[in-house]
Amino acid sequence: MIEKISTEIKSMGNFSDEDLLLFFSKFKKIQLAKGDHFLIEGQISKQIAYIESGLVMYYKISEDTKIPADFGSENDWVTYLKSFSTGLASDMNIVALEETILFALSKSSLEELFEIQPKFLAIKNYYTEISLVKIANHAGNLASLNAKDRYYKFMNEYPNIVNRVPQYYIAAYLGIKPQSLSRLRK
Amino acid sequence: MIEKISTEIKSMGNFSDEDLLLFFSKFKKIQLAKGDHFLIEGQISKQIAYIESGLVMYYKISEDTKIPADFGSENDWVTYLKSFSTGLASDMNIVALEETILFALSKSSLEELFEIQPKFLAIKNYYTEISLVKIANHAGNLASLNAKDRYYKFMNEYPNIVNRVPQYYIAAYLGIKPQSLSRLRK
Repeated sequence: MIEKISTEIKSMGNFSDEDLLLFFSKFKKIQLAKGDHFLIEGQISKQIAYIESGLVMYYKISEDTKIPADFGSENDWVTYLKSFSTGLASDMNIVALEETILFALSKSSLEELFEIQPKFLAIKNYYTEISLVKIANHAGNLASLNAKDRYYKFMNEYPNIVNRVPQYYIAAYLGIKPQSLSRLRK
Repeated sequence: MIEKISTEIKSMGNFSDEDLLLFFSKFKKIQLAKGDHFLIEGQISKQIAYIESGLVMYYKISEDTKIPADFGSENDWVTYLKSFSTGLASDMNIVALEETILFALSKSSLEELFEIQPKFLAIKNYYTEISLVKIANHAGNLASLNAKDRYYKFMNEYPNIVNRVPQYYIAAYLGIKPQSLSRLRK
């Protein structure tokens, strides 16, 4: 984790080893068992975390059904920015689909970092933009591709997730009826 | 424009009038006629702009058809972050659907601002997060709502756009067949 993030951060601009040491000093390890929640609807999202290993799913509940909004796995960051940034209650849940190890920064630690070194904001910016591009692609696929192409694209783009997530969640994420997805998989 | 942005920026943190003067000194006015492009596929996105008045549409071309990815109107910011941030050629077009007045910051001015005052990064962060939340909502609607509910939601959330955008673009944005949309509108 340290090597990967350090390389990424140094590529973003003028960050020294001292900056990185300060940055990493704020992280706390979290271990989630399969089925544990990182965030539950109604709570305020107060942490942002780096996924060392494991798999999480963002979902909303609609008519007693979980509708997945996103997935995160190794080397992704996880938080729910809509709540984290505004301090408003979350309308999203985040659950571990596997045992998951995270390194988490609290909102207060992050604000402290930005206070000491405003250039740390570039790091948040960088990862926020990556999320934005990912979600914009997903929205574009949902609007413009048929079910078959959406599924193929997902398989190609997330080969490390597709066999770890129950198929009915993938179907719901892609806006495909579960029966259609099992036909496609044959 | 100045009043609205100033109020927003001051709400983000510790920004003085001097900071704002520096920020605003970098903006240049751009006027687009209806049909003019702010960004064309293959170009590198080098500007980020605030929409003073008018309406723009982000779109990709697929099989000779324009597939809208997003819209921006008064008080929105417009850029294509995937290209702007990476310096890679854009796979997106941005066109004015009406005469549009923008105040634009070049990438180099923005980088200069971040160099002088890293806390300006908080401004980019703030608006990037707003875009992320908007697009995540759109993706969620596309995956989980039927055509009728997608259209109602769009009408409610973008009352100031719905009658200014040609209906076939709205249909494509919402992943609805144009015939189905005209039925819904009746």
